[in-house]
Amino acid sequence: MDRLKQQMEFMQEIDKLKNIGRQSYITDGKKKENDAEHSWHLAMMAMLLSEYSNEKIDVLRVMSMVLIHDLVEIDAGDTYAYDTEGNKTKRLREEKAADRIFNILPKDQAKYIRELWEEFEEGKTNEARFALALDRIQPIMLNATSGGRAWEEHHVQLSQILERNKKVEEGSVDLWKFAKEAYIEPNVLNGKIGSNGLGVSAHKIKRYVKD
Amino acid sequence: MDRLKQQMEFMQEIDKLKNIGRQSYITDGKKKENDAEHSWHLAMMAMLLSEYSNEKIDVLRVMSMVLIHDLVEIDAGDTYAYDTEGNKTKRLREEKAADRIFNILPKDQAKYIRELWEEFEEGKTNEARFALALDRIQPIMLNATSGGRAWEEHHVQLSQILERNKKVEEGSVDLWKFAKEAYIEPNVLNGKIGSNGLGVSAHKIKRYVKD
Repeated sequence: MDRLKQQMEFMQEIDKLKNIGRQSYITDGKKKENDAEHSWHLAMMAMLLSEYSNEKIDVLRVMSMVLIHDLVEIDAGDTYAYDTEGNKTKRLREEKAADRIFNILPKDQAKYIRELWEEFEEGKTNEARFALALDRIQPIMLNATSGGRAWEEHHVQLSQILERNKKVEEGSVDLWKFAKEAYIEPNVLNGKIGSNGLGVSAHKIKRYVKD
Repeated sequence: MDRLKQQMEFMQEIDKLKNIGRQSYITDGKKKENDAEHSWHLAMMAMLLSEYSNEKIDVLRVMSMVLIHDLVEIDAGDTYAYDTEGNKTKRLREEKAADRIFNILPKDQAKYIRELWEEFEEGKTNEARFALALDRIQPIMLNATSGGRAWEEHHVQLSQILERNKKVEEGSVDLWKFAKEAYIEPNVLNGKIGSNGLGVSAHKIKRYVKD
Protein backbone atom coordinates (compact mmCIF):
# COMPACT_ATOMS: atom_id res chain seq x y z
CA MET A 1 0.00 0.00 0.00
CA ASP A 2 3.05 2.33 -0.20
CA ARG A 3 1.91 3.79 -3.50
CA LEU A 4 -1.59 4.55 -2.21
CA LYS A 5 -0.09 6.01 0.96
CA GLN A 6 1.96 8.48 -1.10
CA GLN A 7 -1.09 9.38 -3.17
CA MET A 8 -3.23 10.00 -0.09
CA GLU A 9 -0.44 12.11 1.46
CA PHE A 10 -0.60 14.21 -1.69
CA MET A 11 -4.40 14.49 -1.34
CA GLN A 12 -3.91 15.74 2.23
CA GLU A 13 -1.18 18.17 1.22
CA ILE A 14 -3.21 19.79 -1.56
CA ASP A 15 -6.03 20.46 0.89
CA LYS A 16 -3.98 23.62 1.63
CA LEU A 17 -5.09 25.08 -1.71
CA LYS A 18 -8.36 25.92 0.07
CA ASN A 19 -6.44 28.50 2.11
CA ILE A 20 -4.70 30.27 -0.77
CA GLY A 21 -6.62 33.50 -1.28
CA ARG A 22 -7.13 35.30 -4.56
CA GLN A 23 -8.10 38.89 -5.32
CA SER A 24 -11.49 38.21 -6.96
CA TYR A 25 -14.66 38.57 -4.92
CA ILE A 26 -17.25 35.85 -5.50
CA THR A 27 -20.52 36.93 -7.14
CA ASP A 28 -22.31 38.01 -3.96
CA GLY A 29 -19.34 40.21 -3.03
CA LYS A 30 -19.16 38.79 0.51
CA LYS A 31 -15.81 37.07 0.32
CA LYS A 32 -12.83 36.60 -1.97
CA GLU A 33 -12.44 33.24 -3.62
CA ASN A 34 -9.59 30.85 -2.97
CA ASP A 35 -7.55 28.74 -5.39
CA ALA A 36 -9.51 25.51 -4.85
CA GLU A 37 -12.82 27.23 -5.61
CA HIS A 38 -11.26 28.96 -8.61
CA SER A 39 -9.88 25.67 -9.96
CA TRP A 40 -13.27 23.97 -9.58
CA HIS A 41 -14.93 26.84 -11.44
CA LEU A 42 -12.42 26.58 -14.31
CA ALA A 43 -13.00 22.82 -14.58
CA MET A 44 -16.75 23.46 -14.90
CA MET A 45 -16.01 25.95 -17.68
CA ALA A 46 -13.70 23.46 -19.41
CA MET A 47 -16.50 20.88 -19.30
CA LEU A 48 -19.22 23.12 -20.72
CA LEU A 49 -17.48 25.72 -22.89
CA SER A 50 -15.07 23.57 -24.93
CA GLU A 51 -17.08 24.29 -28.09
CA TYR A 52 -15.62 27.82 -28.06
CA SER A 53 -12.00 26.76 -28.28
CA ASN A 54 -10.43 28.04 -31.50
CA GLU A 55 -8.92 24.61 -32.07
CA LYS A 56 -10.03 21.05 -31.35
CA ILE A 57 -9.07 20.08 -27.79
CA ASP A 58 -8.90 17.09 -25.46
CA VAL A 59 -11.37 18.14 -22.74
CA LEU A 60 -10.00 15.72 -20.12
CA ARG A 61 -6.55 17.26 -20.56
CA VAL A 62 -7.87 20.82 -20.20
CA MET A 63 -9.84 19.86 -17.10
CA SER A 64 -6.83 18.13 -15.56
CA MET A 65 -4.67 21.15 -16.36
CA VAL A 66 -6.96 23.70 -14.72
CA LEU A 67 -7.48 21.48 -11.67
CA ILE A 68 -3.73 21.39 -10.95
CA HIS A 69 -2.56 24.74 -12.42
CA ASP A 70 -2.48 26.60 -9.09
CA LEU A 71 -1.12 23.86 -6.81
CA VAL A 72 2.32 25.52 -6.80
CA GLU A 73 0.72 28.48 -5.00
CA ILE A 74 0.50 26.34 -1.84
CA ASP A 75 4.16 27.31 -1.36
CA ALA A 76 4.58 30.26 -3.73
CA GLY A 77 1.37 32.11 -2.86
CA ASP A 78 -0.99 33.84 -5.26
CA THR A 79 0.77 36.59 -7.19
CA TYR A 80 -1.73 39.27 -8.13
CA ALA A 81 -2.00 39.87 -11.87
CA TYR A 82 -0.88 43.50 -11.65
CA ASP A 83 1.84 43.05 -8.99
CA THR A 84 4.94 43.94 -11.06
CA GLU A 85 7.52 43.13 -8.34
CA GLY A 86 5.91 39.82 -7.36
CA ASN A 87 5.71 38.71 -10.94
CA LYS A 88 9.50 39.06 -11.35
CA THR A 89 10.21 36.24 -8.86
CA LYS A 90 7.06 34.22 -9.57
CA ARG A 91 8.58 31.61 -11.88
CA LEU A 92 11.44 30.70 -9.53
CA ARG A 93 9.16 30.46 -6.48
CA GLU A 94 6.73 28.30 -8.39
CA GLU A 95 9.37 25.91 -9.71
CA LYS A 96 10.62 25.23 -6.19
CA ALA A 97 7.04 24.61 -5.13
CA ALA A 98 6.46 22.19 -8.00
CA ASP A 99 9.58 20.24 -7.02
CA ARG A 100 8.35 19.77 -3.47
CA ILE A 101 4.61 19.29 -3.93
CA PHE A 102 4.43 17.13 -7.05
CA ASN A 103 7.11 14.79 -5.73
CA ILE A 104 4.92 13.70 -2.84
CA LEU A 105 3.25 11.55 -5.52
CA PRO A 106 4.71 8.30 -6.89
CA LYS A 107 7.30 9.05 -9.62
CA ASP A 108 5.09 8.36 -12.64
CA GLN A 109 2.31 10.62 -11.40
CA ALA A 110 4.73 13.33 -10.25
CA LYS A 111 6.11 13.37 -13.80
CA TYR A 112 2.61 13.48 -15.30
CA ILE A 113 1.49 16.43 -13.16
CA ARG A 114 4.76 18.29 -13.74
CA GLU A 115 4.38 17.97 -17.52
CA LEU A 116 0.76 19.08 -17.32
CA TRP A 117 1.78 22.16 -15.31
CA GLU A 118 4.71 23.02 -17.61
CA GLU A 119 2.39 22.67 -20.61
CA PHE A 120 -0.04 25.12 -19.01
CA GLU A 121 2.73 27.58 -18.17
CA GLU A 122 4.26 27.44 -21.66
CA GLY A 123 0.85 27.94 -23.29
CA LYS A 124 1.85 26.45 -26.63
CA THR A 125 -0.62 23.57 -27.12
CA ASN A 126 -4.30 23.97 -28.03
CA GLU A 127 -5.25 22.66 -24.59
CA ALA A 128 -2.95 25.09 -22.77
CA ARG A 129 -4.18 28.05 -24.82
CA PHE A 130 -7.80 27.25 -24.02
CA ALA A 131 -7.03 26.60 -20.33
CA LEU A 132 -5.27 29.98 -20.16
CA ALA A 133 -8.27 31.70 -21.77
CA LEU A 134 -10.55 30.21 -19.07
CA ASP A 135 -8.12 31.19 -16.32
CA ARG A 136 -8.31 34.82 -17.50
CA ILE A 137 -12.03 34.99 -18.33
CA GLN A 138 -13.22 33.58 -14.99
CA PRO A 139 -11.89 36.41 -12.76
CA ILE A 140 -13.13 38.97 -15.29
CA MET A 141 -16.60 37.39 -14.99
CA LEU A 142 -16.39 37.45 -11.18
CA ASN A 143 -15.12 41.01 -11.04
CA ALA A 144 -17.94 42.16 -13.29
CA THR A 145 -20.69 40.24 -11.44
CA SER A 146 -19.47 41.43 -8.04
CA GLY A 147 -19.86 45.05 -9.12
CA GLY A 148 -16.32 45.74 -10.32
CA ARG A 149 -15.03 46.04 -6.76
CA ALA A 150 -11.69 44.26 -7.23
CA TRP A 151 -10.84 46.43 -10.25
CA GLU A 152 -11.76 49.57 -8.34
CA GLU A 153 -9.79 48.62 -5.21
CA HIS A 154 -6.66 48.02 -7.27
CA HIS A 155 -7.20 51.03 -9.58
CA VAL A 156 -6.92 48.75 -12.59
CA GLN A 157 -6.80 50.48 -15.97
CA LEU A 158 -8.41 49.27 -19.18
CA SER A 159 -5.03 49.34 -20.88
CA GLN A 160 -3.67 46.91 -18.25
CA ILE A 161 -6.57 44.50 -18.75
CA LEU A 162 -6.21 44.51 -22.51
CA GLU A 163 -2.44 44.05 -22.28
CA ARG A 164 -2.68 41.19 -19.77
CA ASN A 165 -5.38 39.37 -21.71
CA LYS A 166 -3.96 39.56 -25.23
CA LYS A 167 -3.52 35.79 -25.17
CA VAL A 168 -7.15 34.98 -24.36
CA GLU A 169 -8.04 35.49 -28.00
CA GLU A 170 -5.48 32.86 -29.01
CA GLY A 171 -7.47 30.30 -27.02
CA SER A 172 -10.96 31.51 -27.80
CA VAL A 173 -11.98 34.38 -30.04
CA ASP A 174 -15.62 33.90 -28.97
CA LEU A 175 -15.03 34.01 -25.22
CA TRP A 176 -12.83 37.07 -25.51
CA LYS A 177 -15.44 38.90 -27.60
CA PHE A 178 -18.10 38.01 -25.04
CA ALA A 179 -15.93 39.10 -22.08
CA LYS A 180 -15.19 42.46 -23.66
CA GLU A 181 -18.82 43.22 -24.46
CA ALA A 182 -20.53 41.77 -21.39
CA TYR A 183 -17.97 42.39 -18.66
CA ILE A 184 -15.25 44.87 -19.58
CA GLU A 185 -16.96 47.61 -21.59
CA PRO A 186 -19.81 48.26 -19.07
CA ASN A 187 -17.27 48.54 -16.26
CA VAL A 188 -15.17 51.07 -18.14
CA LEU A 189 -18.30 53.10 -18.86
CA ASN A 190 -19.35 53.09 -15.17
CA GLY A 191 -15.82 53.95 -14.02
CA LYS A 192 -14.95 50.72 -12.12
CA ILE A 193 -12.16 50.12 -14.62
CA GLY A 194 -9.97 53.17 -15.17
CA SER A 195 -9.73 54.73 -18.61
CA ASN A 196 -6.60 56.89 -18.22
CA GLY A 197 -5.82 58.82 -21.35
CA LEU A 198 -9.07 57.88 -23.03
CA GLY A 199 -11.30 60.59 -21.58
CA VAL A 200 -14.84 59.53 -20.76
CA SER A 201 -16.36 59.39 -24.22
CA ALA A 202 -18.37 56.19 -24.57
CA HIS A 203 -17.64 56.16 -28.26
CA LYS A 204 -13.88 56.31 -27.76
CA ILE A 205 -14.01 53.53 -25.14
CA LYS A 206 -16.08 51.24 -27.32
CA ARG A 207 -13.64 51.68 -30.17
CA TYR A 208 -10.65 51.03 -27.90
CA VAL A 209 -12.18 47.85 -26.41
CA LYS A 210 -13.19 46.53 -29.81
CA ASP A 211 -9.82 46.99 -31.55
CA MET B 1 -24.42 34.70 -28.74
CA ASP B 2 -27.64 33.58 -26.96
CA ARG B 3 -26.23 30.14 -26.28
CA LEU B 4 -23.02 31.50 -24.77
CA LYS B 5 -25.04 34.00 -22.74
CA GLN B 6 -27.03 31.13 -21.16
CA GLN B 7 -23.84 29.20 -20.47
CA MET B 8 -22.20 32.18 -18.79
CA GLU B 9 -25.33 32.82 -16.71
CA PHE B 10 -24.97 29.25 -15.51
CA MET B 11 -21.29 29.87 -14.68
CA GLN B 12 -22.34 32.89 -12.61
CA GLU B 13 -25.15 30.97 -10.88
CA ILE B 14 -22.95 28.07 -9.81
CA ASP B 15 -20.54 30.51 -8.17
CA LYS B 16 -22.96 30.16 -5.22
CA LEU B 17 -21.58 26.66 -4.56
CA LYS B 18 -18.66 28.45 -2.87
CA ASN B 19 -21.07 29.51 -0.12
CA ILE B 20 -22.58 26.09 0.61
CA GLY B 21 -20.92 24.91 3.80
CA ARG B 22 -20.19 21.33 4.72
CA GLN B 23 -19.48 19.70 8.10
CA SER B 24 -15.87 18.64 7.45
CA TYR B 25 -13.03 20.78 8.71
CA ILE B 26 -10.14 21.21 6.29
CA THR B 27 -6.81 19.69 7.32
CA ASP B 28 -5.54 22.60 9.41
CA GLY B 29 -8.82 22.58 11.37
CA LYS B 30 -9.30 26.36 10.92
CA LYS B 31 -12.44 26.32 8.78
CA LYS B 32 -15.02 23.96 7.37
CA GLU B 33 -14.88 23.28 3.68
CA ASN B 34 -17.55 24.30 1.19
CA ASP B 35 -19.05 22.37 -1.70
CA ALA B 36 -16.87 23.97 -4.40
CA GLU B 37 -13.67 23.08 -2.54
CA HIS B 38 -14.99 19.57 -1.87
CA SER B 39 -15.87 19.06 -5.56
CA TRP B 40 -12.41 20.21 -6.63
CA HIS B 41 -10.80 17.79 -4.18
CA LEU B 42 -12.89 14.89 -5.50
CA ALA B 43 -11.93 15.73 -9.09
CA MET B 44 -8.25 15.59 -8.09
CA MET B 45 -8.86 12.17 -6.53
CA ALA B 46 -10.69 10.99 -9.66
CA MET B 47 -7.70 12.08 -11.74
CA LEU B 48 -5.04 10.36 -9.63
CA LEU B 49 -6.73 7.39 -7.93
CA SER B 50 -8.65 5.82 -10.82
CA GLU B 51 -6.34 2.79 -10.72
CA TYR B 52 -8.11 1.69 -7.51
CA SER B 53 -11.57 1.43 -9.04
CA ASN B 54 -12.85 -2.14 -8.87
CA GLU B 55 -13.95 -1.89 -12.49
CA LYS B 56 -12.60 -0.12 -15.57
CA ILE B 57 -13.88 3.47 -15.66
CA ASP B 58 -14.06 6.51 -17.94
CA VAL B 59 -12.06 9.04 -15.91
CA LEU B 60 -13.51 12.09 -17.72
CA ARG B 61 -17.01 10.92 -16.80
CA VAL B 62 -16.09 10.41 -13.12
CA MET B 63 -14.44 13.82 -13.00
CA SER B 64 -17.46 15.49 -14.61
CA MET B 65 -19.77 13.68 -12.20
CA VAL B 66 -17.95 14.77 -9.06
CA LEU B 67 -17.61 18.34 -10.31
CA ILE B 68 -21.40 18.70 -10.68
CA HIS B 69 -22.70 16.26 -8.01
CA ASP B 70 -23.37 18.92 -5.37
CA LEU B 71 -24.75 21.75 -7.57
CA VAL B 72 -28.30 20.97 -6.40
CA GLU B 73 -27.23 22.01 -2.90
CA ILE B 74 -27.21 25.64 -4.09
CA ASP B 75 -30.98 25.50 -3.50
CA ALA B 76 -31.38 22.39 -1.37
CA GLY B 77 -28.51 23.03 1.05
CA ASP B 78 -26.04 20.46 2.38
CA THR B 79 -27.79 17.69 4.28
CA TYR B 80 -25.45 16.30 6.91
CA ALA B 81 -24.80 12.58 6.54
CA TYR B 82 -26.26 11.71 9.95
CA ASP B 83 -29.24 14.11 9.86
CA THR B 84 -32.14 11.60 9.77
CA GLU B 85 -34.96 14.16 9.39
CA GLY B 86 -33.18 16.17 6.68
CA ASN B 87 -32.41 13.07 4.70
CA LYS B 88 -36.14 12.22 4.43
CA THR B 89 -36.88 15.30 2.30
CA LYS B 90 -33.49 15.47 0.59
CA ARG B 91 -34.43 13.83 -2.71
CA LEU B 92 -37.48 16.06 -3.32
CA ARG B 93 -35.58 19.26 -2.46
CA GLU B 94 -32.72 18.26 -4.73
CA GLU B 95 -34.95 17.40 -7.70
CA LYS B 96 -36.55 20.83 -7.58
CA ALA B 97 -33.09 22.38 -7.43
CA ALA B 98 -31.91 20.33 -10.43
CA ASP B 99 -34.94 21.50 -12.43
CA ARG B 100 -34.11 25.14 -11.80
CA ILE B 101 -30.33 25.20 -11.89
CA PHE B 102 -29.54 22.82 -14.76
CA ASN B 103 -32.15 24.48 -16.99
CA ILE B 104 -30.23 27.75 -17.01
CA LEU B 105 -28.04 25.93 -19.55
CA PRO B 106 -28.99 25.38 -23.21
CA LYS B 107 -31.30 22.33 -23.53
CA ASP B 108 -28.66 19.84 -24.72
CA GLN B 109 -26.28 20.66 -21.88
CA ALA B 110 -29.08 20.78 -19.29
CA LYS B 111 -30.00 17.24 -20.34
CA TYR B 112 -26.37 16.12 -20.20
CA ILE B 113 -25.81 17.45 -16.66
CA ARG B 114 -29.15 16.06 -15.46
CA GLU B 115 -28.25 12.59 -16.71
CA LEU B 116 -24.83 12.82 -15.12
CA TRP B 117 -26.36 13.81 -11.78
CA GLU B 118 -29.06 11.07 -11.93
CA GLU B 119 -26.36 8.53 -12.75
CA PHE B 120 -24.39 9.61 -9.68
CA GLU B 121 -27.47 9.48 -7.46
CA GLU B 122 -28.54 6.04 -8.69
CA GLY B 123 -25.04 4.65 -8.23
CA LYS B 124 -25.42 1.78 -10.65
CA THR B 125 -22.65 2.34 -13.22
CA ASN B 126 -18.94 1.72 -12.61
CA GLU B 127 -18.30 5.46 -12.84
CA ALA B 128 -21.03 6.31 -10.33
CA ARG B 129 -19.85 3.65 -7.89
CA PHE B 130 -16.30 4.97 -7.98
CA ALA B 131 -17.47 8.61 -7.73
CA LEU B 132 -19.55 7.68 -4.68
CA ALA B 133 -16.55 5.96 -3.08
CA LEU B 134 -14.50 9.16 -3.50
CA ASP B 135 -17.33 11.30 -2.15
CA ARG B 136 -17.34 9.20 1.03
CA ILE B 137 -13.58 8.71 1.44
CA GLN B 138 -12.70 12.42 1.12
CA PRO B 139 -14.57 13.63 4.25
CA ILE B 140 -13.26 10.62 6.19
CA MET B 141 -9.73 11.67 5.20
CA LEU B 142 -10.42 15.29 6.22
CA ASN B 143 -12.04 14.33 9.51
CA ALA B 144 -9.07 12.14 10.36
CA THR B 145 -6.40 14.69 9.37
CA SER B 146 -8.17 17.50 11.24
CA GLY B 147 -7.99 15.50 14.47
CA GLY B 148 -11.40 13.84 14.36
CA ARG B 149 -13.17 17.04 15.44
CA ALA B 150 -16.24 16.74 13.16
CA TRP B 151 -16.90 13.17 14.36
CA GLU B 152 -16.53 14.23 17.97
CA GLU B 153 -18.78 17.30 17.63
CA HIS B 154 -21.56 15.20 16.13
CA HIS B 155 -21.04 12.22 18.48
CA VAL B 156 -20.69 9.94 15.46
CA GLN B 157 -20.55 6.21 16.21
CA LEU B 158 -18.43 3.64 14.42
CA SER B 159 -21.57 1.66 13.61
CA GLN B 160 -23.01 4.72 11.79
CA ILE B 161 -19.85 5.19 9.74
CA LEU B 162 -19.73 1.56 8.73
CA GLU B 163 -23.45 1.54 7.88
CA ARG B 164 -23.24 4.74 5.83
CA ASN B 165 -20.17 3.65 3.91
CA LYS B 166 -21.14 0.10 2.99
CA LYS B 167 -21.21 1.14 -0.66
CA VAL B 168 -17.64 2.48 -0.76
CA GLU B 169 -16.36 -1.05 -1.11
CA GLU B 170 -18.51 -1.54 -4.22
CA GLY B 171 -16.55 1.26 -5.91
CA SER B 172 -13.12 0.51 -4.49
CA VAL B 173 -12.10 -2.32 -2.21
CA ASP B 174 -8.60 -0.83 -1.94
CA LEU B 175 -9.66 2.67 -0.92
CA TRP B 176 -12.10 1.35 1.65
CA LYS B 177 -9.44 -0.91 3.18
CA PHE B 178 -7.03 2.04 3.35
CA ALA B 179 -9.66 4.36 4.88
CA LYS B 180 -10.51 1.86 7.59
CA GLU B 181 -6.90 1.24 8.55
CA ALA B 182 -5.46 4.75 8.19
CA TYR B 183 -8.40 6.94 9.19
CA ILE B 184 -11.21 5.12 10.97
CA GLU B 185 -9.52 2.62 13.27
CA PRO B 186 -7.10 5.10 14.92
CA ASN B 187 -9.98 7.48 15.60
CA VAL B 188 -12.06 4.78 17.26
CA LEU B 189 -9.08 3.84 19.41
CA ASN B 190 -8.53 7.45 20.50
CA GLY B 191 -12.22 7.99 21.18
CA LYS B 192 -13.00 10.62 18.49
CA ILE B 193 -15.39 8.12 16.89
CA GLY B 194 -17.78 6.55 19.39
CA SER B 195 -17.72 2.79 19.95
CA ASN B 196 -21.06 2.29 21.73
CA GLY B 197 -21.66 -1.30 22.63
CA LEU B 198 -18.14 -2.34 21.73
CA GLY B 199 -16.43 -1.50 24.99
CA VAL B 200 -12.91 -0.13 24.67
CA SER B 201 -10.96 -3.24 23.77
CA ALA B 202 -8.61 -2.49 20.88
CA HIS B 203 -8.86 -6.08 19.78
CA LYS B 204 -12.67 -5.96 19.55
CA ILE B 205 -12.56 -2.68 17.63
CA LYS B 206 -10.02 -3.95 15.14
CA ARG B 207 -12.12 -7.00 14.45
CA TYR B 208 -15.30 -4.91 14.08
CA VAL B 209 -13.66 -2.48 11.64
CA LYS B 210 -12.14 -5.28 9.60
CA ASP B 211 -15.31 -7.36 9.13
